[in-house]
Amino acid sequence: MKFNGRNVSISPASKIGRNVRIGDNCTIYDHVEIGDDTIICNDSVLGEPLAAYYRDESYQNPPTLIGPGSLVRSHAIIYAGCTIGPRFATGHRVMIRENTHIGESCSIGTMSDIQGNVKIGNYCRLHSNVHIAQSCSIGDFVFLYPFSVMTNDPYPPSIDIKGGHIGHYSQVGVHAVVLPGICVGENCLIGANSVVNKRLPDFSLAMGDPAKIVMDVRKYVALGKGNPYPWMKRFERGMPWEGTGFDTWIQQNSGEVKLHDH
Amino acid sequence: MKFNGRNVSISPASKIGRNVRIGDNCTIYDHVEIGDDTIICNDSVLGEPLAAYYRDESYQNPPTLIGPGSLVRSHAIIYAGCTIGPRFATGHRVMIRENTHIGESCSIGTMSDIQGNVKIGNYCRLHSNVHIAQSCSIGDFVFLYPFSVMTNDPYPPSIDIKGGHIGHYSQVGVHAVVLPGICVGENCLIGANSVVNKRLPDFSLAMGDPAKIVMDVRKYVALGKGNPYPWMKRFERGMPWEGTGFDTWIQQNSGEVKLHDH
Amino acid sequence: MKFNGRNVSISPASKIGRNVRIGDNCTIYDHVEIGDDTIICNDSVLGEPLAAYYRDESYQNPPTLIGPGSLVRSHAIIYAGCTIGPRFATGHRVMIRENTHIGESCSIGTMSDIQGNVKIGNYCRLHSNVHIAQSCSIGDFVFLYPFSVMTNDPYPPSIDIKGGHIGHYSQVGVHAVVLPGICVGENCLIGANSVVNKRLPDFSLAMGDPAKIVMDVRKYVALGKGNPYPWMKRFERGMPWEGTGFDTWIQQNSGEVKLHDH
Repeated sequence: MKFNGRNVSISPASKIGRNVRIGDNCTIYDHVEIGDDTIICNDSVLGEPLAAYYRDESYQNPPTLIGPGSLVRSHAIIYAGCTIGPRFATGHRVMIRENTHIGESCSIGTMSDIQGNVKIGNYCRLHSNVHIAQSCSIGDFVFLYPFSVMTNDPYPPSIDIKGGHIGHYSQVGVHAVVLPGICVGENCLIGANSVVNKRLPDFSLAMGDPAKIVMDVRKYVALGKGNPYPWMKRFERGMPWEGTGFDTWIQQNSGEVKLHDH
Repeated sequence: MKFNGRNVSISPASKIGRNVRIGDNCTIYDHVEIGDDTIICNDSVLGEPLAAYYRDESYQNPPTLIGPGSLVRSHAIIYAGCTIGPRFATGHRVMIRENTHIGESCSIGTMSDIQGNVKIGNYCRLHSNVHIAQSCSIGDFVFLYPFSVMTNDPYPPSIDIKGGHIGHYSQVGVHAVVLPGICVGENCLIGANSVVNKRLPDFSLAMGDPAKIVMDVRKYVALGKGNPYPWMKRFERGMPWEGTGFDTWIQQNSGEVKLHDH
Repeated sequence: MKFNGRNVSISPASKIGRNVRIGDNCTIYDHVEIGDDTIICNDSVLGEPLAAYYRDESYQNPPTLIGPGSLVRSHAIIYAGCTIGPRFATGHRVMIRENTHIGESCSIGTMSDIQGNVKIGNYCRLHSNVHIAQSCSIGDFVFLYPFSVMTNDPYPPSIDIKGGHIGHYSQVGVHAVVLPGICVGENCLIGANSVVNKRLPDFSLAMGDPAKIVMDVRKYVALGKGNPYPWMKRFERGMPWEGTGFDTWIQQNSGEVKLHDH
């Protein structure tokens, strides 16, 4: 039953790599480029056009790039103008609006809603139903949990939007909200249901509404677990240090996160 | 690739206006009326039948009305029995259940979930993932932000539901909850993650769980911005006072919000 | 327009009961068994294969079972390896991942997201947008309200997940979060927006972040309503005691919840 081409529409102005498989009921619009060995599951839409498409006969779809080795699960909607690095993975029904740029080896969970003009680094994991407002950005190795939200409008409604930023290695808990323009440092841990209304320095463990810094995450002691943060020494599944360990990997990178350009 | 009629099912008992375009994979059920110049994007369902459709051979689909000049983005599900005014716009995958009545120039964001028997005024903006329980209502020019919720059951589970109301010009923040039967006044601003458990008078700035009235919004001073509320003098995009300004517009309307009947 | 077989794909290795109707655009994968008198509405996917399907030629789809008398509304995605009891009902766009086991007469609301390896008892009601993490379980007659979340990772990110449990007859409010591994007793009521970070004994009325036990639910007095909890004496719609009342029903069951095996 796989990839039998039922009810598929692929623009001749798209560029499909080697060994790409495209599921039933998919629509691939103009100027989409799909890297080699990528799987686009059923009912997905790539290169969804901007609103002008519907009203302006001279509309040209901006280019969309999906990196090689990716797995886009069913019912995705990825807008035109997005560039996504290699080894991208999604849950179902993700929505990624225009001009979103995503690094390598990221995954975006079921029903997450990326509102466009967003920058996502490398090796990030967005779980289900994450909402990122326009103009926000996140670093590398960031984990966002279900229903976490980044916002962008300090005095709604307005046209003066200010996207916030979340630094490398940080974790944002279930139902947590980062208020407009707020910067969360690196290696932070934000508790479930928190509302972050102030800049958080690196290594903050913050929780509550409004979020208060409870301690330095490095001082956090877990029952029978020692110090679980920073987490990179105890978690490696899917990370570039898988097999070698974080310390070795970071040394090989001269103490810096150096990833492939994309 | 536009509107090529791939896998479309349109009931002969529907009424499609002039210059309406209907995307691929759409289903238009019985007794749907679509106003002129409206665009229904791919994979949308209009006039989704009620449960009786599946079990009762004598089922008749109630009429559904989508106003002229609307743009319904892909994967919408709009139930039979809804009436929606002119210049309606949606994000993707909206769900609007039966007997929901929506005024003119409203927009409803991606994955919002309107549970039916809901009344929405004019020029409202529901962002992504707004959830409105049955029997709730909102006035005109109301903005609801992502994951905000109106509820209706004071002692769950019950059959004694009490929908709440949100007054004209009010704003409800990300992840905020309005508890069952609660009325929010006009020109209120409800902070992110608040739980509103009491009636809020007009011009309340309220936040917290339970939400406390912090001040009159008119006294709120924003750094470098002066008094941002009421917001109508500083925001006009898509509003009926766009170009003329709110003061002029309201004077032209003899100090009252007078909109076209629908 | 009903069930006209437009763009349907049904595996010959599935087993479809008597009087089953399958809507347009549905995909039924290998080894799905659908009980008699069940309705699968348009655009649904049953037996969605696991990731190995896409990469491993020897992949065999595990069996999926949907009980008789069910109504799966449109755009559902139910993974292979799930077993679901009789009289199941869903809203739209539900997502149920692999190895989820659901008892009889349950309903799961629009956009709810069951992450797999989840156990759900009998007569449960999950409203819209409920998120249940892997390895969590809930008892019988449990009601979960919109955007409520059960989580499973105490020190994210990790591979040591600990699913929590919610006991029979309990209610979890809008936007409430149950933290990893936490057990909620029977007959509890958890307020909107609460974060449950500790074991709750039976009959707890708990609210806040972190949730505090406010009183025994049996002592809760509602204005003009008396003692609304436990709720089983005042609510019977769709429950097995509908028509006879809870007391009679529980006596007939020798004081125990005894339901059909499934």
